[in-house]
Amino acid sequence: RVNGTRLWDSLMEMGDIGGTPKGGCNRLAATALDGQARDLFVSWCKAAGCTISVDQMGNMFARRPGRDNHLPAVGAGSHLDTQPTGGKFDGVFGVLAGVEVLRTLHEHQIETPTPIEISVWTNEEGSRFQPAMQGSGVYAGRFDLETELNKTDIDGLRLKDELAKIGYLGDEVPGSRHMGAFFEVHIEQGPILEDEDKEIGVVRMGQGIRWYNLTIKGRSQHSGTTPMHLRQDTMVVSALITTEVERIAHRHANGLGTVGFMNIHPNSRNVIPGEIQMSVDLRNPDADVLQQMHDELVAFCDVLASARQLVIEVDNYWYFAPVEFKASDDVKAATEQLGYSHMDIYAGAGHDACYMSDLVPTGMVFTPCLKGISHNEAEYTKPEECEAGANVLLHAMLRASAR
Amino acid sequence: RVNGTRLWDSLMEMGDIGGTPKGGCNRLAATALDGQARDLFVSWCKAAGCTISVDQMGNMFARRPGRDNHLPAVGAGSHLDTQPTGGKFDGVFGVLAGVEVLRTLHEHQIETPTPIEISVWTNEEGSRFQPAMQGSGVYAGRFDLETELNKTDIDGLRLKDELAKIGYLGDEVPGSRHMGAFFEVHIEQGPILEDEDKEIGVVRMGQGIRWYNLTIKGRSQHSGTTPMHLRQDTMVVSALITTEVERIAHRHANGLGTVGFMNIHPNSRNVIPGEIQMSVDLRNPDADVLQQMHDELVAFCDVLASARQLVIEVDNYWYFAPVEFKASDDVKAATEQLGYSHMDIYAGAGHDACYMSDLVPTGMVFTPCLKGISHNEAEYTKPEECEAGANVLLHAMLRASAR
Ligand SMILES: NC(=O)NCCC(=O)O
Ligand SMILES: NC(=O)NCCC(=O)O
Repeated sequence: RVNGTRLWDSLMEMGDIGGTPKGGCNRLAATALDGQARDLFVSWCKAAGCTISVDQMGNMFARRPGRDNHLPAVGAGSHLDTQPTGGKFDGVFGVLAGVEVLRTLHEHQIETPTPIEISVWTNEEGSRFQPAMQGSGVYAGRFDLETELNKTDIDGLRLKDELAKIGYLGDEVPGSRHMGAFFEVHIEQGPILEDEDKEIGVVRMGQGIRWYNLTIKGRSQHSGTTPMHLRQDTMVVSALITTEVERIAHRHANGLGTVGFMNIHPNSRNVIPGEIQMSVDLRNPDADVLQQMHDELVAFCDVLASARQLVIEVDNYWYFAPVEFKASDDVKAATEQLGYSHMDIYAGAGHDACYMSDLVPTGMVFTPCLKGISHNEAEYTKPEECEAGANVLLHAMLRASAR
Repeated sequence: RVNGTRLWDSLMEMGDIGGTPKGGCNRLAATALDGQARDLFVSWCKAAGCTISVDQMGNMFARRPGRDNHLPAVGAGSHLDTQPTGGKFDGVFGVLAGVEVLRTLHEHQIETPTPIEISVWTNEEGSRFQPAMQGSGVYAGRFDLETELNKTDIDGLRLKDELAKIGYLGDEVPGSRHMGAFFEVHIEQGPILEDEDKEIGVVRMGQGIRWYNLTIKGRSQHSGTTPMHLRQDTMVVSALITTEVERIAHRHANGLGTVGFMNIHPNSRNVIPGEIQMSVDLRNPDADVLQQMHDELVAFCDVLASARQLVIEVDNYWYFAPVEFKASDDVKAATEQLGYSHMDIYAGAGHDACYMSDLVPTGMVFTPCLKGISHNEAEYTKPEECEAGANVLLHAMLRASAR
């Protein structure tokens, strides 16, 4: 079994890098703080007897040799980047549970049949650069390396340069590691395990996600002199889309719809905004229903653009199809062996494990999280819940390694 | 008569300070660019034989002596600050028409009965600091000097420090100059003069304005894991308010309603925004109707806050009552004397002249502007229209000086 206190202390130490006054964490991908967090991960893994590799996408792998180093490794991992007002657990917990697995094996001098590899994936959050799960997506071949490295943040800074700046633009070709299975432990980020009073969620699938950039082009004009009927007001149009996104979500079972981001030009109180970029995030566990939601959004924007006589560009730049986790029986068996209460669940958020499941049998472990609050500084999971998750991860990995 | 070519050349030279690729101007109040524009104004006025004073609010006065310097001066002026994507005429034209008056008097060695003073008012636009017409409002005693100097922009920079940085935090007590009348020439910023094919608008009044800061406080949560019924989504709430602002404006004759500004936290695509600040701008020429519009906004926000179970703070921090221009007959007489076609009109925007009318008889002159487009880089007024406005200003001022 893992050492829960050591795991908790590491979580708190890592959370101080980018720690916010409200107890959360602001550590955007490929920033200097992300670099510090990566350095700490490297030092911990080296102390546990690992070697480190970094690939051209900034993904990192800490490798602990096994009995037969020609066998494919059993992998686990998650991400160290956070939302701008994120918590201390989302992603970080999955990485540090992996570090705790390494430490536990190291201190008990356990030789696993295969090597073990703990990975840190670049920009899982999709906040500073889009889409989310960018590093694991490139690794799995879903995205093109050069395209992603050339993506820029809102200030025009390029991911490639930002990774180089913090010293984590490596040489290894993404996707070239020799892995046989992959596991990820993560806080649920939703309220279900807490409601159902279960210690572990055995994640059977990840729901579908569609991300959009909408660009609305109207005309900037004076708020005090432009009659209502002569306006091309992009703020009103963005508002009508936002309320429609909510209605689309309500119309479909398990539908979710969110507008989280807007960039308003010129964003001055006495100017009718002439151009707005806004995000839309639609989700559903059922690919067909998600397609319907998509069609409704596109149709609404078409009608609105002609009614309001302006331009609405709808770019659905990311579609993430629902995914099934093939190694979830390993997770279930490990959970039962350890005696934790559990239930089957699906993942509402995207995770690096979702892309890894393109390549190898993959399993995900969820732990409860306070009131389901996540992407919020108040995000919290109890020490004993973290410990249980790390124990399940350890035993699921041992099972896969022994096979 | 003024020299229209010289006026136009000065407008273009001034417009280069902060000039944008699209032919507009981005010269926010109390920035380094505002400082450069002020320096150029000072050099031009000194060359036309004026002395310069600056008050504690950064308002500037270029004084040309008259026959009897104990008599109250006849003033004119406007502002040099612009919107972030503003034009080359709004405000600037009023200042440079004043400079052209000074130059015309200077080159013809005309001694006016009273002194003449051309003023530049600090932060008329209200974009970087709120409210609008901040400098003239302090001068007229509507706002407290210290309160306004301590206002900060979106980056937390204080107006007082920013004025000191560009060298325009003066010593003179605002409101202490000896003036007997005030005039302002301005582009209409609306489509009426162009539609009616008139060269000059005799501005009889300025409409009422109410500016609001709304703060919506919900909860930041994950867009992929938070069921729709558990959300406190401030983006949807801001959208409902934005569409209601449009409806309020439509419900009332001559009503205008605009949401031009929003600040979204954390503004990340997979986070339900937990807090939003947004502006509302309501206008009406009739004070009672504007009060009704206000009441409807407040009532809507109350109902919405309880329906959505979150907090909406409504701060109506600026009320500008409709104002009558007492010296508009001087404007009309000067226009008729010069033979320009004209009509009576009211001002949709606030102007420095509106606050000056608290203190002295005040008149405003409007010139047409292309398609009524303003607060936009495409803002345009023809050279001959500018010349006509400056001629009317000159002769209205001479009339007031002779009285
Ligand atoms: N786990 C997580 O928050 N991932 C970010 C991608 C998403 O929005 O689902
Ligand atoms: N003239 C002008 O655009 N003034 C700014 C204040 C307002 O919004 O009316």
